[in-house]
Formats: sequence, C-alpha cells, structure tokens
Amino acid sequence: MHTDSFYIGVDIGGTTVKLAVVTPEGTIKDKWEIPTDLKNKGERIVHDIKQTIFEKIDRLEIPKTSVIGVGVGAPGFLDSISGFVYEAINLGWIDYSLGSDLEEMTGWPVFVENDANLAALGENWKGSGENSNDLLAVTLGTGVGGGVVANGELLNGANGTAGEIGHITVVPDGGAPCNCGKTGCLETVASATGIVRVAKEKLVDNQASSLNASVPLTAKDIFDAAAENDPVSEEVITYVTNVLGMSIANMANVLNPSKIVIGGGVSKAGDSLLIPLRKAFDKYALKRVREAATFEVAVLGNDAGVLGGAYMVKKRLENK
Amino acid sequence: MHTDSFYIGVDIGGTTVKLAVVTPEGTIKDKWEIPTDLKNKGERIVHDIKQTIFEKIDRLEIPKTSVIGVGVGAPGFLDSISGFVYEAINLGWIDYSLGSDLEEMTGWPVFVENDANLAALGENWKGSGENSNDLLAVTLGTGVGGGVVANGELLNGANGTAGEIGHITVVPDGGAPCNCGKTGCLETVASATGIVRVAKEKLVDNQASSLNASVPLTAKDIFDAAAENDPVSEEVITYVTNVLGMSIANMANVLNPSKIVIGGGVSKAGDSLLIPLRKAFDKYALKRVREAATFEVAVLGNDAGVLGGAYMVKKRLENK
Repeated sequence: MHTDSFYIGVDIGGTTVKLAVVTPEGTIKDKWEIPTDLKNKGERIVHDIKQTIFEKIDRLEIPKTSVIGVGVGAPGFLDSISGFVYEAINLGWIDYSLGSDLEEMTGWPVFVENDANLAALGENWKGSGENSNDLLAVTLGTGVGGGVVANGELLNGANGTAGEIGHITVVPDGGAPCNCGKTGCLETVASATGIVRVAKEKLVDNQASSLNASVPLTAKDIFDAAAENDPVSEEVITYVTNVLGMSIANMANVLNPSKIVIGGGVSKAGDSLLIPLRKAFDKYALKRVREAATFEVAVLGNDAGVLGGAYMVKKRLENK
Repeated sequence: MHTDSFYIGVDIGGTTVKLAVVTPEGTIKDKWEIPTDLKNKGERIVHDIKQTIFEKIDRLEIPKTSVIGVGVGAPGFLDSISGFVYEAINLGWIDYSLGSDLEEMTGWPVFVENDANLAALGENWKGSGENSNDLLAVTLGTGVGGGVVANGELLNGANGTAGEIGHITVVPDGGAPCNCGKTGCLETVASATGIVRVAKEKLVDNQASSLNASVPLTAKDIFDAAAENDPVSEEVITYVTNVLGMSIANMANVLNPSKIVIGGGVSKAGDSLLIPLRKAFDKYALKRVREAATFEVAVLGNDAGVLGGAYMVKKRLENK
C-alpha cells in the first residue's frame, strides 16, 4: 500500500487519451493510454477517463485519498479557471463543463487547460524549459501550436485563445488557405504539412529534383534531401526557417522569453532546423531579446502533456 | 494638515519629468513637471526628483508619513523587481540603481517600471482599459511603443524588453532602417515619422498630390488630406493601417487581449485611424480573438504615466 501522494495527468487527444500517475517531484510512476471514444459528441470520454484511472490506482494499490488532484488537457478553447470548455471541435464538445463533471465523478480536484498550453507547462517543468518564468513553446506538427509562460504563469487570454502562434499571418496577401478560415498563416508554411505544401509548389518548376522520387512526400524527406544538397529542398528549408524565425522573433520582441522550445514531429530534424532557425531569429529579434533567449528542442515528446497536467495540479493547489 | 494617504507617480522623459500626487482612488491631487537635467549622464535627475517632491508635499501640507510610496517610469530597459536600470540611452544611464537610490534619498518605498509599460498600466487603471486582465497598449508617437498586461500583470520578460511592439518586422527584406539597428520594423511604417516616410516615398511619383504643399509634412497633414480624398494620402493610410492592423492581430493571436488601446499623437486622428485599423485587424485575427477584443483610443494623454506609477505602488504593496 502506497502512502505517498500522487497527481494524475490526463492529455485528451482526438485519437487517444494519454494518462499518467506522477509523483510530486515529477517522476512518472505509470503511464498508459486509452482510445478516445468520439461517438455521440464524445459523451463517454470523461466517464472512460474516470474508469481507467480508478482501475489503474486500484492495480497500483494507491488509495483514493493519496491522489491529490487531476490535471487535464483538452484540444480546444476553454476557461482554465472554471474548467469550462467553450469548444473542442475534434472531440465534439461545445459548452461542456469538463472540470466540474470530472470532479463530481472522481471526488478529486480537477484542473483543466488547453492541451498545447499543458505541454508547454510540462516541458517547462521537467523538459527543456528548466522552469523558466518566460517561455515560448512552439510545436511543429500537423499544425503549428504554441504555449506561452509569462511572469511564471501560463497565458490564457480573454477567452482561452492565447498562444495561437500557428495563426499569425506570414503571407499578408495571396497566402495558402488555412484550416482556421484565414489565409497565409504560419501553419501553412511551417507545419509538417505546410513544409510539404511549400516544396510541392517549388517542384512544379523543378522536375529534376530528387524530391520527386518521394511519394508521398514528407517533411522528413525534405530535410533528408537538403542534407544531400538537393537545391530545391535547401531553398524550401531556407524559406521556411526564415518565415518561422521571423515569426518567433516578432513574438519574442513582445514576450522577451528566456527559453524558446521547439517541439513536434518537425523538431526531430534537430540542427538542420535549429541552426537556420536561430540565424533567422537573430536577424529579426532586438539585440536584448536575442541575448536573453536560448533555443531548445523539446525532449518530453508525448509525456509533456501528462507531466504538465501533474504540474498544473501542484501549482494550483499551492496557490490556494 | 492632510491625514489621507497618497501615492507619488513619476514619469521620467528625455525632456521633462512629469510628477503627480495621486489618491488611492486614482484622483490626481496635483501634477507638475520639471526639466530633465541630462548633464553628466543624468546624474542629477534623481536628486531633482527627490527635491521637487519634498517641496511639493511641503506646500500641499502633506506629511512625509502620508506618502505610501513612489512609482517611477523610465525610458529604457530595466529590472522592475529590483528597480535596476540596465540602460536608458536618452537619459545617459547605464547600469544604474534607480530604485534603491531614490528609496535611500526619500525614505519611501520606490517601484520602477519601463515608461511605456507604466503608461499602459495607468490607462488600464483610470483610462480606456477599464481594469482589463488582458490588455495590449500601442503608442503611436515619434516611435511605436507598447505595453502588455497579461493575467492581470505587466509583462516585463526575461531582461525587461517585453512589449517592444514597434520592433516587430513588417517588411522582411529591404525595409527602411530603424533606430534599433534592424530594418523594416513596424515603427518605420506606423509611427508619426514612419507615416511621413511612407508618404514621401509615394510622393516621388505623385507630384500633383495636394500633400506636396505641406512643408514640413506631418502625419496629421496626411490624415487631413485623406479626409479631403487626396488619393496618395488615402493610399498611405490604407497601407499603414493594414500593416499595423496585421501586426496587432498577430500579437493578439498570441496574447488574446480583451482591450486594445491605441495612444500617442497619431491616435488623435480618431476614427480615420481606428475604422480602417479595426478592418485590417478583423481580416488577420482569429475569430475568437476578434470576438474578445475591443479597440479604444487612450484617453489619459500625459497623465497615463504618473497614474500608472501610482497604481504600481498600490498593486506592489497590496501583494506584499
């Protein structure tokens, strides 16, 4: 029987829900995942979460009273104070009282955050952020996500929409359409799909490029071909890192972060991404902003969200 | 003899130091200014401030014990926690312990902030901000300044450089040189001098424009001529508001403010500025970000800084 205390971190995604039992020091005691049940506008998701946590702590012989609280990340816009989800399109939730429902079902304090913000928090606690008071996290995956820590606190904004770095406009006119309804967003250039889109545009006039052999074309193919000096791939990466570096510099001139953490699938390119990115950032950032900021690659991968959930419980209960 | 409590707000500028005695409710009991003595790297400034405050409260018959604290704004980069000024180029200060020096001289608690941040705080307290927890203040004067309130707190960043909205890059390549050493900054387009610069570029090919009669040309002349349907002026204002609206939208997609307050000399253009600006903002901001944000013109003018100083004292002492 465990008499120690634990936090539960929950990271709800459109395909799976990731969960972890975490110690107050941030060690993952156990982690697992369950499928996200999207049927009937996701009405079973919260019940499934309760069920799997109860089974898990039972198996780990952790008494219910040893769980201090649950920190949940959801992919959408929400009020992190009340735990109310305005909308989480991928889950089918609109105006849903996630926090209080899960609290009622489990009997534990439940805290809710946007999933990208929660990942930033986790990365800041146990990953590359090193508990920075001023952190900018940029996730380059299928889309471009972001999370901002300022004055030591996550930034949520007036209606839970802060940190939407992927939707800053980088092509003012005639940019590619974005899922958000606008055009020319950073996401249309610097996400994994954006990088491929940019490359395909260039390939139209470059039938000889070795990239044409890659079907389907991925962002990784483009980084790999650039490493082999394929000129089209080099051009794509120069363009993408210039646009991304300028966007990050523009944010940094306003946020003045000490850490800029790059995560998501595209960040696996490592120095092939970071070196030109830092060069572009240095060109567009103010001198004092450059001096303050270090670039890091996110290291926690899929654990960032559940660790962020645990940390949120810790912080919120401490501040009570 | 007054037995009430008062705050002192001080706004140090390159030409004058503005001061005010402020009640806890934010009413200015008295305000005045003294010249800024820039001789010998500004070494007399703090002494002059002490002197004039002592004389003033003596004349107002306010006992020294009725002054709760002093809030000072300085034009530069500084650590608002320690009151240490890294650099305030216009005053000649480098690595100067402003806060502790003035504290020692006066015996009162002294709190220090960047002047643009302090103006944002004042405008949020007693002006157009209406105590928003998430405010973006943009000052369009000789330069473009900014201040950000997020989670109810001023954003300072890692080394006091947060809020430098004027130096986000709006022309990635071949932009006009900026005072900061970069090129293509927002300040080169949307400040009073930037607007004139943009107009002069256009006038080279438009000798017939009525604007050519204005010598020296000012931003006000351009807004006035646009009101009379001068095509060059209309083009300038469309371009400037589009660039500025996009920049504010980009910041807002990350900060998600409920209030966007536009101040500085250029804001006197009122609706001729605000209407096209809001239109551009709406084009480039996310839907939820648009829904959350209202645009306001700053109303406090030169009083914003001293009121912000008073508010800072109030907030910092409350939080102790």
